[in-house]
Amino acid sequence: RVNGDRLWDSLMEMAKIGPGIAGGNNRQTLTDEDGEGRHLFRKWCESAGMTVGVDKMGTMFATRAGTDADALPVYVGSHLDTQPTGGKYDGVLGVLGALEVVRTMNDLGIRTKHPIVVTNWANEEGARFAPAMLASGVFAGVHSLEYAYGRKDPEGKTYGEELKRIGWLGDEEVGVRKMHAYFEYHIEQGPILEAENRQIGVVTHCQGLWWLEFTLTGKEAHTGSTPMDMRVNAGLAFGRIVEMVQDVAMSEQPGAVGGVGQVFFSPNSRNVLPGKVVFTVDIRTPSQEKLDRMRAKIEKQAAEICEPLGVGCSVEAVGHFDPVTFDPVLVGRVREAAEKLGYSHMDIISGAGHDACWAAKVAPATMIFCPCVGGLSHNEAEEISREWAAGGADVLFHAVLETAEI
Amino acid sequence: RVNGDRLWDSLMEMAKIGPGIAGGNNRQTLTDEDGEGRHLFRKWCESAGMTVGVDKMGTMFATRAGTDADALPVYVGSHLDTQPTGGKYDGVLGVLGALEVVRTMNDLGIRTKHPIVVTNWANEEGARFAPAMLASGVFAGVHSLEYAYGRKDPEGKTYGEELKRIGWLGDEEVGVRKMHAYFEYHIEQGPILEAENRQIGVVTHCQGLWWLEFTLTGKEAHTGSTPMDMRVNAGLAFGRIVEMVQDVAMSEQPGAVGGVGQVFFSPNSRNVLPGKVVFTVDIRTPSQEKLDRMRAKIEKQAAEICEPLGVGCSVEAVGHFDPVTFDPVLVGRVREAAEKLGYSHMDIISGAGHDACWAAKVAPATMIFCPCVGGLSHNEAEEISREWAAGGADVLFHAVLETAEI
Ligand SMILES: NC(=O)NCCC(=O)O
Ligand SMILES: NC(=O)NCCC(=O)O
Repeated sequence: RVNGDRLWDSLMEMAKIGPGIAGGNNRQTLTDEDGEGRHLFRKWCESAGMTVGVDKMGTMFATRAGTDADALPVYVGSHLDTQPTGGKYDGVLGVLGALEVVRTMNDLGIRTKHPIVVTNWANEEGARFAPAMLASGVFAGVHSLEYAYGRKDPEGKTYGEELKRIGWLGDEEVGVRKMHAYFEYHIEQGPILEAENRQIGVVTHCQGLWWLEFTLTGKEAHTGSTPMDMRVNAGLAFGRIVEMVQDVAMSEQPGAVGGVGQVFFSPNSRNVLPGKVVFTVDIRTPSQEKLDRMRAKIEKQAAEICEPLGVGCSVEAVGHFDPVTFDPVLVGRVREAAEKLGYSHMDIISGAGHDACWAAKVAPATMIFCPCVGGLSHNEAEEISREWAAGGADVLFHAVLETAEI
Repeated sequence: RVNGDRLWDSLMEMAKIGPGIAGGNNRQTLTDEDGEGRHLFRKWCESAGMTVGVDKMGTMFATRAGTDADALPVYVGSHLDTQPTGGKYDGVLGVLGALEVVRTMNDLGIRTKHPIVVTNWANEEGARFAPAMLASGVFAGVHSLEYAYGRKDPEGKTYGEELKRIGWLGDEEVGVRKMHAYFEYHIEQGPILEAENRQIGVVTHCQGLWWLEFTLTGKEAHTGSTPMDMRVNAGLAFGRIVEMVQDVAMSEQPGAVGGVGQVFFSPNSRNVLPGKVVFTVDIRTPSQEKLDRMRAKIEKQAAEICEPLGVGCSVEAVGHFDPVTFDPVLVGRVREAAEKLGYSHMDIISGAGHDACWAAKVAPATMIFCPCVGGLSHNEAEEISREWAAGGADVLFHAVLETAEI
């Protein structure tokens, strides 16, 4: 078993960096706080005898050597960046859980044939720079490095500039590493495990996603003196599209979600009808067929909503992944480890996207979930128990050990 | 007749301060640019032989002495502040039109019995600090000075702090001045005069307004892993309220408008359902009965929209004025002046709010409108012709002369 107290203490230590306003964290990608979190993580890795490499996307790879010089490493990781009002566990648990696996191997004097690489992927959240899972996406060959460097935050700063600025631009080419396997331990971020009273989620699939960024063009005009029939009201079109996205998601139940988390009205003044409205629709489902259909419906119906209002409507896909099926052999090992250790478990589909989804393109990959209170995540009130944290790390330890071979 | 070229040149000169990004202006209240515009205006007033006083709200009063020491002044003014993406004429035309009236009197060697006070009201737009027409509201006793000083911009800076910072906090008590009459010349900001091919709008009324600031409280949660039936989606409630406001306004046609110009999602991240949505509904109509009914409908229906979604809903009125009827004697003088000068004219109701609406509480007041291209205002593309600008100033000159008495 891993040392649950040590894992918990490390989680609490990391949470001191970039504290939020309500008990959570604001340690967004490539901010000074992200840089500070990375330094702490590197220090811990080096203390555990690992060597830390950094690639050109800023992803950190901490290697514990294996006994067989020719054996490919087992990668175990997640991310240390957070949402602007994020929790203490989303991502962090997977990185520090992986570190705890290595620390436990050290405690027990275990050597593995395959090296273990504890991984901190850069920009998983996508809150500051869309899309999410950007560095793992470049690693897997889904995005080019140029594309990633050019991504802009809402202030117009680019990923490339900011990575340099915080001093975490590495020299390693992205994606040159070959993986024997990839494991990621994460909080569920949804309500199922808690509701079903299971300690371990054996993650078999991940639902697919589209982030559709709409730009609506209306006519900036006075809210008081512009008659109703002379308005080209992009704000009204936005309201209708929000409702339509809800309807489309509801029409694909069960097993589909859709909503809008971000919107910018311009000029965003009380007495000005917006000339421009930019917002992102987030749709997800484990079914490829549904995913395609939802996207098509939303684009078609948005155009139909805008047309009679005279509002211009353009769409750009700023995030996408197809539904993922994780590696059955690794999934089996996770299930067996939970069974062997006596943890209640169930198979589960990931509602959120994870770096494991991109890793799965280039290696056998899978995930382990632990529950979170009320299914709450992307909220500073995100909470888990010490026991849940330790239980998932135990399962991770055994599944990794089985795969890295003693 | 006034000197139309001089008026136009002054308009263009003022427009150089706080230029926008698309040919208009961004000279918002109590910014450095607002301060700079005030300096230029003071210089012009002093060159025209006037003495400039400033009150504790930052309103500027430039006085041209009358021949009768006991006669109350005729006030003529508007505002120099703009929207974030505002035009060159909204407000500015009324202040510089009033200045042109004085300059013309100087040219012609005309002395009036009543003094003339050219007035630049502070914070008319309400874009940076709600409500609009703040300084004239304090002047008319509608708001207290403490209330006004405490108004905050989106960054949390207060009106009181910012007024001091830009160096335009005057020492005169607000509202101590007594007015013989108040005139305001303004662009229509709507499409009617142009459509009816009239050069002068004789403003008989102003429609009433409510700015209702809603705060919706949802539950911040992951857009991907939170099932549809577990969402407390404040963004969805917002979308429905936008549509409902449109419906309420349409149900009160003709003669009513309603819309939403400003919204803040929080945390405004693509993959987070908003925990908080703050936005302002703007409703207006010349009918007191309709205004009351629209407000009641909107508050009731917003609560009905939020309730089944589990979304919390609170409302604060951050702006309000009742419909205004302008002084029939002054209105008659404007109509006669237009007639005498041979300008096509029509009676009109103001769609926008103006400082004249508050001045009307403490003095006989009225307004004069000139057309604007396409009815467009609160848009950098706001445009008027030289002839329109000069025509309204001519009417203003004659109506003021009639009232200030030679
Ligand atoms: N796990 C997680 O929250 N990832 C961010 C990308 C997403 O929105 O799913
Ligand atoms: N004239 C004008 O645009 N005033 C601002 C207040 C309003 O929204 O009516």
